[in-house]
Amino acid sequence: MCQGDDPSCPEFGLHYEALKRDLASERRSFLKSSFVAAGGLAGLAAGGMSLVTPALAQATAAKAPATRKHHYLPANADTVHWGYFSKTLKPRVECDSGDIVTIETLTHHANDDAERMVQGDEGAESVFLWTKDKKGVDRRGAGPTDPKVYKKGSGEGQGVHVMTGPVYVRGAEPGDVLEVRILDCAPRACANPAFKGKSFGSNAAAWWGYHYNDMLGGQKREVVTIYEVDASGAKSWAQAVYNFKWVPQTDPFGVEHATIDYPGVPVDHSKTARNFDVLKGVRIPIRPHFGTLGLAPAEVDFVDTIPPNWVGGNIDNWRIGKGATMYYPVAVEGGLLSVGDPHASQGDSELCGTAIECSLTGVFQLILHKKADLAGTPLEELNYPMLETKDEWLVHGFSFANYLKELGSDAQSAIYGKSSVDLAMRDAFRKMRHFLMTTQKLTEDEAVSLMSIAVDFGVTQVVDGNWGVHAIVKKDLFAGRV
Amino acid sequence: MCQGDDPSCPEFGLHYEALKRDLASERRSFLKSSFVAAGGLAGLAAGGMSLVTPALAQATAAKAPATRKHHYLPANADTVHWGYFSKTLKPRVECDSGDIVTIETLTHHANDDAERMVQGDEGAESVFLWTKDKKGVDRRGAGPTDPKVYKKGSGEGQGVHVMTGPVYVRGAEPGDVLEVRILDCAPRACANPAFKGKSFGSNAAAWWGYHYNDMLGGQKREVVTIYEVDASGAKSWAQAVYNFKWVPQTDPFGVEHATIDYPGVPVDHSKTARNFDVLKGVRIPIRPHFGTLGLAPAEVDFVDTIPPNWVGGNIDNWRIGKGATMYYPVAVEGGLLSVGDPHASQGDSELCGTAIECSLTGVFQLILHKKADLAGTPLEELNYPMLETKDEWLVHGFSFANYLKELGSDAQSAIYGKSSVDLAMRDAFRKMRHFLMTTQKLTEDEAVSLMSIAVDFGVTQVVDGNWGVHAIVKKDLFAGRV
Repeated sequence: MCQGDDPSCPEFGLHYEALKRDLASERRSFLKSSFVAAGGLAGLAAGGMSLVTPALAQATAAKAPATRKHHYLPANADTVHWGYFSKTLKPRVECDSGDIVTIETLTHHANDDAERMVQGDEGAESVFLWTKDKKGVDRRGAGPTDPKVYKKGSGEGQGVHVMTGPVYVRGAEPGDVLEVRILDCAPRACANPAFKGKSFGSNAAAWWGYHYNDMLGGQKREVVTIYEVDASGAKSWAQAVYNFKWVPQTDPFGVEHATIDYPGVPVDHSKTARNFDVLKGVRIPIRPHFGTLGLAPAEVDFVDTIPPNWVGGNIDNWRIGKGATMYYPVAVEGGLLSVGDPHASQGDSELCGTAIECSLTGVFQLILHKKADLAGTPLEELNYPMLETKDEWLVHGFSFANYLKELGSDAQSAIYGKSSVDLAMRDAFRKMRHFLMTTQKLTEDEAVSLMSIAVDFGVTQVVDGNWGVHAIVKKDLFAGRV
Repeated sequence: MCQGDDPSCPEFGLHYEALKRDLASERRSFLKSSFVAAGGLAGLAAGGMSLVTPALAQATAAKAPATRKHHYLPANADTVHWGYFSKTLKPRVECDSGDIVTIETLTHHANDDAERMVQGDEGAESVFLWTKDKKGVDRRGAGPTDPKVYKKGSGEGQGVHVMTGPVYVRGAEPGDVLEVRILDCAPRACANPAFKGKSFGSNAAAWWGYHYNDMLGGQKREVVTIYEVDASGAKSWAQAVYNFKWVPQTDPFGVEHATIDYPGVPVDHSKTARNFDVLKGVRIPIRPHFGTLGLAPAEVDFVDTIPPNWVGGNIDNWRIGKGATMYYPVAVEGGLLSVGDPHASQGDSELCGTAIECSLTGVFQLILHKKADLAGTPLEELNYPMLETKDEWLVHGFSFANYLKELGSDAQSAIYGKSSVDLAMRDAFRKMRHFLMTTQKLTEDEAVSLMSIAVDFGVTQVVDGNWGVHAIVKKDLFAGRV
């Protein structure tokens, strides 16, 4: 019987809504429910044409347990790691290939307006808790944790995203590919009764933004804009509520932050000047997605979440939302998937340094493709994070495809001084050529011609240390092939 | 009465079809017919929200003649200039603001397969005529025309596009803005009875392509792929017919061309090896558009058509097709609009150096906005080529916004060594900021935030000397403003 997982069921729509309601009622409770492994959810993924061939799907399914489980991972001080990926982290969920995991994510900018993004929200309150005696999550970043060494705070803010996870996928080993299907993705409702039915996000035009050293009149400033998003799903657009110029904030441990240099510093609005006359009447279409989604890298123990990498991470492509599927090469045992940096909307480039940073909850299905089954399939040589949507395939080029390896022991600081769009464009070109030649079996000459007449290159982001250019090819091109 | 120019007429569809048939029957005849200036055609342009305010539209209309004329400009050896813009050119048509001009354009790659793209086509035959005694169009490029100096041929191929025009717009002066509405755009049917109902294009993966110095195994080669396009409009996709590796070709004047270094060299297919097993079953959605459309620059007498500039030119954005409107700052008296480089399809980046280069015929309406009327309107400070579609506004960033001025007397050669995507991204950012601040009256902080969450930056081209990045903002954002 269809439990919201079989699109061929005549009542699929109703059943899927019921499934989603069930998931909602499980929120914060971490229940595990069993699913009949009918294979029906395959139909929820990218659709018709997929990088997963029928033979690979069969081989993969044969290795998965007979029953599919559903896991719920709430976001709270016990389930998040802040600002870093690490292969040393204890998994927060263990799952099998084929399982579904609902994961709550919190924006690391929630304390820009605690009233709207933290208060009353048990999970967020536990994460953002910070008094003179205690921090809900002490370490924030891949930097030093020794108070004698750090200056801004533990972890030094070398990495900023609140990451929920990691999720350990049983049997995952280096050389495998993890398919991550985003079945759903929705804004987290504000828990403060004063703002019932709404959700909020923050956009910080920060010192790491592309615009910062190029402002009119040379006046450097950081400006945070708070946006309102409808949490009911009735409105498809966000709108600005107010903005304020960042003024030095002293955190509860007594450190002054003259700029936005450490994540989660509570903003004291008695010191800011809020301007409610901002972007009046402007409606921003929302594109809910996860800015940072990926696996733990193998190269280093603690890795800054900001620069994206060959196993994913902070790709910041707004297309990584509901209905999309990501394919990641596995670098460490269990894969160790983490999710964070939720966005209500972002443009290609993420120009000012952030999107509309807004807490979201996602429903993911994780499918493990074993290395031995990949031979001869489109996923065989995958060594970069690959995005599949209903209509498109996208490769992600970075200034450095694997900066941790390419830039040596100093990589995590060096990357911030070395990025360029030109380098990312070059990498995107090479990856798309590789993609077309390996997955579509084109010759190099065919691939090059096709790239020029039918592939669109766009600027993913110019703010994440390792800058990004993506290349998009429509599946339709190949629909007529015999 | 509606003559195909009043969308509010209940029979507009029929009348517009009749108008198009009339235009077709006028082909090569250069007739001029009169239109009732009912203002109806305004509705054919970008639609609802436009950069032209009602007041500006009124002021502009008041300066136009009471009757609107239609002009037909065929493409032949007498109506084209090859490879250069020039303010010294004699106009091929003179028109008034509001007039409609149907303009034929020919791809400069037609001689890659003369059988499919030249033979039987009177206009194309006159342009591509080249015997040991005569060239239909001698000068090709902005380079030297003295046989004692040039090496490849007259004009030296410093600029490659066959440009139809120029069109002189009466009353146009520096400081004005010319609005160019593309009312229609369709492939030119092959005139060779052997290929009735079809149209063809050529894609050259050439030495100036982005891929050329980065081929697998380091093997440099130029490969031309011939594509078939449906001329009836029944099929919305193109497909490859064959490809061939460029081998040295000796032109009728005896000059050998080891690479594709001079436009219009007739390819002798007895010397090539044609491979018909290419991109089998791959269907490329067509996006007919004009790669090169713009006004004559003021800075220099003869300007290479390849690098785009602040008055337009070779922007190579596939969105410059049917339904789109371009706004150009006028640099010289009469504006001197020329059109060429027709494309059946191109991806963002035009990676290999060319698109599907395919002859097209366009129907344009030219509307002159006088400087005195621009004050206080969104077009007031326009100093770059601006694209408006039904749903979007786009600014075009270049490595150098005005390279002819910025790079000095050596600009036309220097530009080829100085381009980068990074520079073009910077220019696109600045232009979009300017656009949002001037046309939407946003503060800099509002503009910067909006660019990060709702503006998409893409790579227009990385092959035209002066590289391009465009920025897209959706009109919908502003639809709710009071």
